[in-house]
Amino acid sequence: MENKKKLVYITRKEHFNAAHRLYNPKWSDEENESFFGKCANKHFHGHNFDLYVTVKGIADENTGMVMDLKKLKVVIQHFVIDKLDHMNINEDVDFMKGKLASIENLVVEIWAQLEPHIENGKLHAVKLYETEKQFVEYFGE
Amino acid sequence: MENKKKLVYITRKEHFNAAHRLYNPKWSDEENESFFGKCANKHFHGHNFDLYVTVKGIADENTGMVMDLKKLKVVIQHFVIDKLDHMNINEDVDFMKGKLASIENLVVEIWAQLEPHIENGKLHAVKLYETEKQFVEYFGE
Amino acid sequence: MENKKKLVYITRKEHFNAAHRLYNPKWSDEENESFFGKCANKHFHGHNFDLYVTVKGIADENTGMVMDLKKLKVVIQHFVIDKLDHMNINEDVDFMKGKLASIENLVVEIWAQLEPHIENGKLHAVKLYETEKQFVEYFGE
Amino acid sequence: MENKKKLVYITRKEHFNAAHRLYNPKWSDEENESFFGKCANKHFHGHNFDLYVTVKGIADENTGMVMDLKKLKVVIQHFVIDKLDHMNINEDVDFMKGKLASIENLVVEIWAQLEPHIENGKLHAVKLYETEKQFVEYFGE
Amino acid sequence: MENKKKLVYITRKEHFNAAHRLYNPKWSDEENESFFGKCANKHFHGHNFDLYVTVKGIADENTGMVMDLKKLKVVIQHFVIDKLDHMNINEDVDFMKGKLASIENLVVEIWAQLEPHIENGKLHAVKLYETEKQFVEYFGE
Amino acid sequence: MENKKKLVYITRKEHFNAAHRLYNPKWSDEENESFFGKCANKHFHGHNFDLYVTVKGIADENTGMVMDLKKLKVVIQHFVIDKLDHMNINEDVDFMKGKLASIENLVVEIWAQLEPHIENGKLHAVKLYETEKQFVEYFGE
Repeated sequence: MENKKKLVYITRKEHFNAAHRLYNPKWSDEENESFFGKCANKHFHGHNFDLYVTVKGIADENTGMVMDLKKLKVVIQHFVIDKLDHMNINEDVDFMKGKLASIENLVVEIWAQLEPHIENGKLHAVKLYETEKQFVEYFGE
Repeated sequence: MENKKKLVYITRKEHFNAAHRLYNPKWSDEENESFFGKCANKHFHGHNFDLYVTVKGIADENTGMVMDLKKLKVVIQHFVIDKLDHMNINEDVDFMKGKLASIENLVVEIWAQLEPHIENGKLHAVKLYETEKQFVEYFGE
Repeated sequence: MENKKKLVYITRKEHFNAAHRLYNPKWSDEENESFFGKCANKHFHGHNFDLYVTVKGIADENTGMVMDLKKLKVVIQHFVIDKLDHMNINEDVDFMKGKLASIENLVVEIWAQLEPHIENGKLHAVKLYETEKQFVEYFGE
Repeated sequence: MENKKKLVYITRKEHFNAAHRLYNPKWSDEENESFFGKCANKHFHGHNFDLYVTVKGIADENTGMVMDLKKLKVVIQHFVIDKLDHMNINEDVDFMKGKLASIENLVVEIWAQLEPHIENGKLHAVKLYETEKQFVEYFGE
Repeated sequence: MENKKKLVYITRKEHFNAAHRLYNPKWSDEENESFFGKCANKHFHGHNFDLYVTVKGIADENTGMVMDLKKLKVVIQHFVIDKLDHMNINEDVDFMKGKLASIENLVVEIWAQLEPHIENGKLHAVKLYETEKQFVEYFGE
Repeated sequence: MENKKKLVYITRKEHFNAAHRLYNPKWSDEENESFFGKCANKHFHGHNFDLYVTVKGIADENTGMVMDLKKLKVVIQHFVIDKLDHMNINEDVDFMKGKLASIENLVVEIWAQLEPHIENGKLHAVKLYETEKQFVEYFGE
């Protein structure tokens, strides 16, 4: 069948709402405020985060799918969204403990949460929007 | 001039990122958690809020405008966005002190902040998106 | 409390994917194709429908809410989305039986499904997007 | 038939790209620049305009429609889009001749172009986005 | 001229509305329903599909273009949109005959339809949104 | 620290409104109109341009950032947006002088403006939307 060896990329979008602040505990409050500005506000601020997870692979002949998107949704929900949604990234999220709560660090840790659970295909990219105007991507490199 | 008496509605969209939690201080923590669920998380969560402010009036003959949208932008920035952006609605916002931090209450208070400063035209509506999936509107009634 | 009598409009957005065709059984196939064009295709076509449901009311003093949006979500899910999502509007939907499957008729029937189940506040509007370029609204009038 | 007297609002979105500048010929260049700022740039600037046209009426029993959206599309295309798309609003558009090229004036003139050609139902609203952040509405009042 | 050898990627977005179902004719109805769930509904369901086609190449000195986007639009319209819009992917589309109607298979076949007709530049990517939350990409590998 | 060598891509979106026309001064007006159609309109037309700038690099241990997005915003504003917003690309923009005002040429020149000013990380991509339906990308190759 001609489709057998074609490499397709599938992406699922999920969503979470969370609070965070940019704060380096090795710095004084003044240093944090000077560098991070209002992003360091001690009472936190928050965002609606949009998360895009991309898996690449060959579509299966019987199902027409690389990986069942319903299963991918469940994996993202269980290992990422349930831990982040309506949470405080600095205070409540086990896999961010001890790490500065920047989106650059967050996207790398989300990749680490997801990768062991992608069974068909291979995790290709994690893209995380903090606002409509800024986002980060990580490709596991 | 034929345009003189035509009633036009103009809208400006602005944006802020903030943290909040739904919490009634007259209730126990258990009651709050039971009613508000994860929205009551004690470390807060947050959103990217989109705010739409609508003013109605007659376009001026010389300027073609109801109210200069550059001025409307400044008014919204000064009286609303500067007080809410990168803030915690429960902790940092003077005009929400003593009020439950729901978007229903927030939209009413934003109206109260803006109305005295609309000079040409009349404030018609304030619309506030908490997420892409839920928003509130208030028309001053 | 000053908020007690302020009328606030809250809106929840939900989503369903469905197939339909525009077809009047009293007309011949030729008449249907002549009037409805490709929308009458006998094998159906489909859309991602976005549904906005607006309820108006006074925010409760204890909860800061008109109607709990989590409950509104459940009502929409149970009485509308579960009956329409991944369905064929002409073939599978009880409340559309015997009615031409236009969005104009659909929005009126969705209102009829929802209205008896809005307990706090009052149903104000149902808005239904068929595509990004066309939508209908119904206000119960 | 129960639907016969239900009032439904249908909306069609169209799009045009145009140049304009805000300029009052009765003022000096300095006065224009002082009031309109960079919007008065003599070489013009431009926008992607999104136009929403809403018609209200009762859905016809045989067609399930208020007004055929395909016909509404043709009317908007012929009387509005063809005259504005890839045009300069100050220089090229007959129905804006002698009028300041503000969106407030433009939305009123678009209404005047469309209204005589709405045959089933009644023109209810014209909404015009200049950018994602600012738009105007006119209801014929 | 310094631009001569710069590689630019241009993308055109088009749109179609179609019905489909996920169904493997080698399986029983029960097996299909068990694996594909409501996506196997025998009366079909549907989507608004957004299609992005990317061509890469060097901008021509005389036209400033890689490939005239007006021509790319015509190619996409003729070879893809006309065959899919308001159609049933399982029943009406010649190039999907005998193939499971998944978006993974569809994106590969759309590539095959387009590639022979890209004259200036080279087809780089086809991206297909089934919903706002899930999409597939194919790069011809 | 495990994050030290992970390559993260960060993107900032900015916006400008500008006028332009497609016009090759070596051709006659008839040739221009014949090839470029309404895009050659002598009075110009315009767009709301969305610009996405992507920088890649390793997140710094102390700040959690590749490059401070606030600084990236300032660089884009100063070297690109201030020169293009509310301007006429054919008439007013120094770095487009003598170049055909196509988006293909524009995206290459925007890259040239930005690259010398990216201090942490490396410029990876510039993406420019002319409308929601067409955009170009340049990766410096």
